[in-house]
Amino acid sequence: MNILVINSGSSSLKYQLFQMPAKDPVCSGLVERIGIEGSFIKHTLYTAGGKVSQEKDSFIANHGDGLKLVIEMMSEGDNAVISSVDDITAVGHRIVHGGEFFSKATLITKEVKQQIKDLSPLAPLHNPVAYKCIEVAEVTFPNAKQIAVFDTAFHQTIPEEAYRYALPEKYYKEHSVRVYGFHGTSHKYVSEQAAEWLNKPEAKIISIHLGNGCSMTAIKDGKSVDTSMGFGPLSGLMMGTRSGDIDPSVLFYLMEASGYTAAQVKVLLNNQSGLLGVGGSSDMRDIRKLFGEGDAAAKLALGIYCYRIKKFIGAYSAILNGVDAILFTAGVGENDKATRAAVCKEMDYLNIIMDEEKNEAYSGKAMDISTPESKVRILVIPTNEEYEIANQCYHMVETTVAS
Amino acid sequence: MNILVINSGSSSLKYQLFQMPAKDPVCSGLVERIGIEGSFIKHTLYTAGGKVSQEKDSFIANHGDGLKLVIEMMSEGDNAVISSVDDITAVGHRIVHGGEFFSKATLITKEVKQQIKDLSPLAPLHNPVAYKCIEVAEVTFPNAKQIAVFDTAFHQTIPEEAYRYALPEKYYKEHSVRVYGFHGTSHKYVSEQAAEWLNKPEAKIISIHLGNGCSMTAIKDGKSVDTSMGFGPLSGLMMGTRSGDIDPSVLFYLMEASGYTAAQVKVLLNNQSGLLGVGGSSDMRDIRKLFGEGDAAAKLALGIYCYRIKKFIGAYSAILNGVDAILFTAGVGENDKATRAAVCKEMDYLNIIMDEEKNEAYSGKAMDISTPESKVRILVIPTNEEYEIANQCYHMVETTVAS
Repeated sequence: MNILVINSGSSSLKYQLFQMPAKDPVCSGLVERIGIEGSFIKHTLYTAGGKVSQEKDSFIANHGDGLKLVIEMMSEGDNAVISSVDDITAVGHRIVHGGEFFSKATLITKEVKQQIKDLSPLAPLHNPVAYKCIEVAEVTFPNAKQIAVFDTAFHQTIPEEAYRYALPEKYYKEHSVRVYGFHGTSHKYVSEQAAEWLNKPEAKIISIHLGNGCSMTAIKDGKSVDTSMGFGPLSGLMMGTRSGDIDPSVLFYLMEASGYTAAQVKVLLNNQSGLLGVGGSSDMRDIRKLFGEGDAAAKLALGIYCYRIKKFIGAYSAILNGVDAILFTAGVGENDKATRAAVCKEMDYLNIIMDEEKNEAYSGKAMDISTPESKVRILVIPTNEEYEIANQCYHMVETTVAS
Repeated sequence: MNILVINSGSSSLKYQLFQMPAKDPVCSGLVERIGIEGSFIKHTLYTAGGKVSQEKDSFIANHGDGLKLVIEMMSEGDNAVISSVDDITAVGHRIVHGGEFFSKATLITKEVKQQIKDLSPLAPLHNPVAYKCIEVAEVTFPNAKQIAVFDTAFHQTIPEEAYRYALPEKYYKEHSVRVYGFHGTSHKYVSEQAAEWLNKPEAKIISIHLGNGCSMTAIKDGKSVDTSMGFGPLSGLMMGTRSGDIDPSVLFYLMEASGYTAAQVKVLLNNQSGLLGVGGSSDMRDIRKLFGEGDAAAKLALGIYCYRIKKFIGAYSAILNGVDAILFTAGVGENDKATRAAVCKEMDYLNIIMDEEKNEAYSGKAMDISTPESKVRILVIPTNEEYEIANQCYHMVETTVAS
């Protein structure tokens, strides 16, 4: 069964084609600079012999034209993987915000589309684009099922005392202010892998997703019970360019005493802070290099970065009343051994003991890097949000057919 | 040695007179509505036979007149406790903000006064008033030592990775944005009591100050290593009227999408949130009463309140790599048994086990309410900021005389 996964940005479109239930994609690609001079598509085909990429420059006026180009790349020439659009059984759309409407993958109807549109104020950079892209996909793939998979869905099980802020109720009821949480598809995927690894569906797991955006989730019985991102994707951990948690007093002070506008402070916290703001680069590899050269700012950036992860491990252990496994995933989580080592250092109060050799030896496949004596498993599990989206779509289609 | 402790507000002035080294004050009082119609002084004398209070209405134009009235009350009539102002050896001033200048009690010189004034942008409601009150006290008590005791001082030992926000360095260097922390005098006092109780100066202690303002501090070797309030007294725990931690995205959203001004959001977060905002009253006793009547909002308020304390116990256990004692103090911490019970429930992963009977039996004196099996002591220790200020002044005077 061919399932196309689409992740749309304001001027970009990423895609992967899966022949489910196979886990590896058949092809993947990226349409960039949609509606902007210099637009192009980069398409990669995966074969037994390796991968072949081709790039094609051509003006791509909108997401509809982008999708047509994607079909062209997939269906024409020697490298065709489908013969027509009708070979696509389902299109899985990654949607950032599902609000309180959606707690799982959902078949897109007229009503669902409207709800995605209605949630635009909560995700103004993402939901309107995703909405447009769904409409385009409905025209391009008229016979495929359109399915929405939400970044927020996994976190809809978080209990009220954790998702409510200490504000009057009207800000929740009328303004929709609450913790939503993000990276849900990733946390769900890796925590399920971990529970399987532990052979314990009811396991207490702390999932640490460290990419350009970073978040942590406390999971029990396969359900998210708390997460570090909140109303938006800004709070919690220090990230590539985002500040993470900060005393709101700082915002008022910068506006009142230092003359900043709210818009300037927003840009500061979202785009100029985090590893970039403190250490000079949003890329952990650069920070590690600078640190290696004795750079004090890079050292501080790493210090704050790991310190906050430790605090969340502690906080989530408390609300879970213990922890069976912590797991690292995403770019930094999978590739930066030193971050994993720093986070797990001096955590023997919880009996978290890392096997340093295993940590060093990690090379891309799910692995337990704790010592046999450690009471808490330390796992590194590569995330795969695209496959998780494809898999959720696959199960939905299978279930629909079966029923 | 007579030491007068002064705590000044914009239109009020609280005081206590100690005859050090005695721990109980000789008298205490409150001047209210300074410069406002209806001003009065309430003066209380403590004797072996009990306490006697008297109230006197009279227009009090400014803090200088207020202090003169305080002297009158202390030195005139049958209840006189001093014969003249010259009986006061030192005046201890509670100062909210000491910035990075002050890490301990400090003899007030011209330079110190200027520094307190310079810190006014960081504590606009407090430092200017305290500055004015110092100048008045210098005139009123020309022969006494004037000593400043700062709310922030105890937290100056917090390491950089904990006190820096993940913002570019210039916000620290040029705008003084960092974690300062507050309630330092209280956290210092109760954690020293706890270390003495444990007979372990190097103990790992988590101090939980629950008053109208609430904060928690992680303490090791007698030093603060992290605290939940930050740049201002707004972040961290849920408080009487303050929100505590909140995703900064919420602030931007309320300003952009809901049309609030920054000033309105500031009032919302500082004065209309917390127990008041969620549960309908800033007073824990009211919330408990409402909860007892089955009120859902009160239940939620208590849920969020205790949930956050648990998270900080977990976070601080992680950064301390274990914990010897947690301690409850201040109004709610000392008097609300149900909060202590809820916080310590299901924390056996850390081996925190409360003795419910002891918790019920607590009646105002420092006490260990954990079971003998609990590996973590649970202490309730009444705070006494005024005595702590008097004591710091006393030691400073003694040391100065000795040297």
